[in-house]
Amino acid sequence: MTDRAARAIAECRLIATMTEETGRITRRFLTEPMRAVHAHLRVRMEALGMVVRVDAAGNLRGLWQPPGVGPQRLVLGSHIDTVPDAGAFDGVLGVTIALEWVTIVKQLPHPFAVEVIAFSEEEGVRYGLPYLGSRAVAGQFDPALLTLKDSEGISVDAALRGFGLDPAAIGDAALDPHAVCFVEVHIEQGPILEGENLSVAAVTSIVGQTRLTLTFTGQANHAGTTPMHLRRDALAAAAEWISNVEALAQRTESLAATVGRLSVTPNVGNVVPGIAQVSLDVRHARDAVRIQAVEELLGKAEAIAARRGLSLARAGQLEQPAVSMDEGLTSLFTAAMEAAGFPAKTMHSGAGHDAIVMAGRLPTAMLFLRSPGGISHHPDETARPEDVEASLRVAHEFLHRLSLQIR
Amino acid sequence: MTDRAARAIAECRLIATMTEETGRITRRFLTEPMRAVHAHLRVRMEALGMVVRVDAAGNLRGLWQPPGVGPQRLVLGSHIDTVPDAGAFDGVLGVTIALEWVTIVKQLPHPFAVEVIAFSEEEGVRYGLPYLGSRAVAGQFDPALLTLKDSEGISVDAALRGFGLDPAAIGDAALDPHAVCFVEVHIEQGPILEGENLSVAAVTSIVGQTRLTLTFTGQANHAGTTPMHLRRDALAAAAEWISNVEALAQRTESLAATVGRLSVTPNVGNVVPGIAQVSLDVRHARDAVRIQAVEELLGKAEAIAARRGLSLARAGQLEQPAVSMDEGLTSLFTAAMEAAGFPAKTMHSGAGHDAIVMAGRLPTAMLFLRSPGGISHHPDETARPEDVEASLRVAHEFLHRLSLQIR
Repeated sequence: MTDRAARAIAECRLIATMTEETGRITRRFLTEPMRAVHAHLRVRMEALGMVVRVDAAGNLRGLWQPPGVGPQRLVLGSHIDTVPDAGAFDGVLGVTIALEWVTIVKQLPHPFAVEVIAFSEEEGVRYGLPYLGSRAVAGQFDPALLTLKDSEGISVDAALRGFGLDPAAIGDAALDPHAVCFVEVHIEQGPILEGENLSVAAVTSIVGQTRLTLTFTGQANHAGTTPMHLRRDALAAAAEWISNVEALAQRTESLAATVGRLSVTPNVGNVVPGIAQVSLDVRHARDAVRIQAVEELLGKAEAIAARRGLSLARAGQLEQPAVSMDEGLTSLFTAAMEAAGFPAKTMHSGAGHDAIVMAGRLPTAMLFLRSPGGISHHPDETARPEDVEASLRVAHEFLHRLSLQIR
Repeated sequence: MTDRAARAIAECRLIATMTEETGRITRRFLTEPMRAVHAHLRVRMEALGMVVRVDAAGNLRGLWQPPGVGPQRLVLGSHIDTVPDAGAFDGVLGVTIALEWVTIVKQLPHPFAVEVIAFSEEEGVRYGLPYLGSRAVAGQFDPALLTLKDSEGISVDAALRGFGLDPAAIGDAALDPHAVCFVEVHIEQGPILEGENLSVAAVTSIVGQTRLTLTFTGQANHAGTTPMHLRRDALAAAAEWISNVEALAQRTESLAATVGRLSVTPNVGNVVPGIAQVSLDVRHARDAVRIQAVEELLGKAEAIAARRGLSLARAGQLEQPAVSMDEGLTSLFTAAMEAAGFPAKTMHSGAGHDAIVMAGRLPTAMLFLRSPGGISHHPDETARPEDVEASLRVAHEFLHRLSLQIR
């Protein structure tokens, strides 16, 4: 397993060189470096005896199903697109590890078919909307998405055609009926496993998420001539609210609430701010907790605005319920962890993944690997060889147990 | 006085049409519309019997000193440059009213010489530094200022030459030794007089001002995967500090403290902010109160940063002591107010004016007029005819009293 782990990591470093920007890792949906990744992975997959194709949504798909192996198949995968200036492991490691899983399945007493999918789009960078690849695989690709345009005015439809694909055939990207379950391996992108000194965890659910924007509007005024009691300072109101957001999240178990974006108008040092626009991102594994937190924070914003004589406007951007992973598969993972000599750690995922979309189509599970420093979406993102090796030992136990169910 | 008031206002509306931008009032230092204002005011001044010149700093100066009137002179003035998208009265009204003062002086039993100065630069828009005009008049124009460049790379030296002026002669712009005092009439640019339903006030001092920038640096992180207790959120720290700034100003008599500018990095809704940079503007008529407030707020920022594990950097932009107006002249104004039937209102100025610079050279006073709605630096900025008329009645009493001192 040590060699396999080293190979999975080395593949990520190699794929990281296939980038849109010199010196930075940036690989958006259907760009030229993605074509290079396809060419590279195709060689790897074919060497493993897999039949390879690129579906109409740009997902690279390899199927290992030698003669004598039944039609029931395990689907594995993660994404090969990245955020701008990314690390080498977010998404890609889930694909290179999936190829190592194929080598494990091949050695099982009772092997079964495996399809590995390198999803074409998960980050939502190019079109502002994530999961374009897995939507097609899950049979949930709305044709209206073809009209979305990127910052250069190129539609999804045109981008697909430019990559040599046929948008009209996107329905054919849907999963084969013999797919029995989906598993995604991914780096945690957070500090939990590092904090507990653990290599891997099974994901029980992916948190629900609310994203919205609030705009406090007061009155811009001269900072020297406007007495404090006559001000309607939009930034002071936003600041008071931001402290409330932080305090609520700190006193609510496992709630994450973030104000990540703030813009001030006119944003000049000697003018009392007239407008302050803030983002809110709230996440929790239980939808009821998240919804109540959002309501409380909106009520607080209204009270702050009213007391200060400001107006408040609200715009919603996202309302995503929590998604549970399949309990049977997750139990199979925890049993596999214990059999491999690791604690049966479970956790929820604070970030979204292709597994959210796939879980709407078939039983789905996720395995997290420790993120050193909790760092992700950054060039310093990494993965430790011993953690990848641990994940492969768990995979061996998991796949052995799964083979008893699938055959 | 009613006709004089109407004329002073109508002149402002006319001068407002001399602008760099169609539909907006914008008139920066030594731009073409400033030449048009000079041409217009020159005709007005000459009709009043004044001798007119443009000094080497671009200030338009008219001297009324008919035969038989002694050399001692009163200097009046304000500025004719504007901020972008300005109102019609900030600065300009002080010049058009000064011309009406000349008509009053002419009718006094014992008239004295009057010099009216339309300062070329007060707002600091073109070169990022205010008071270029009054610095020259006060004999405080540092030749190094000639090398400052505007956004188009044009130096002060080149701009002066382009306007037909000789930068080498800027020393000649200094006040005549017979100047005995300086008076500036200006709109309040704040809501105090409106709140007290008063037309005019004498200014006792111009507040001191501290401007600085603080940078809180924490750690940018994933908003979904970073638990609250492991965050080092720079915006949450800045928000806590902004609330402290507001609270201190609210509980300190006459203190104005403003955070007008805030920039967040990376400023993305789903990323915990890594850097928050904020401006601080603190003003008070008493330097000791201002300095103590700034020290307290810096200490608070350091404590917040330390508790949250952030670093804090500080950069100072301005440290301007309060400037007192001449007590004798100010008393003459309050006596004049009472004689004209108005309350003897005094106040400090929260904004800077050419009078700050002139006070370093000779006894200086300011008269404020009510700003309806407290609005300034905005197209809605205005002046009420009855307030201008009130100021002229006060001026009549003031000038009469001054004539007894000057002769």
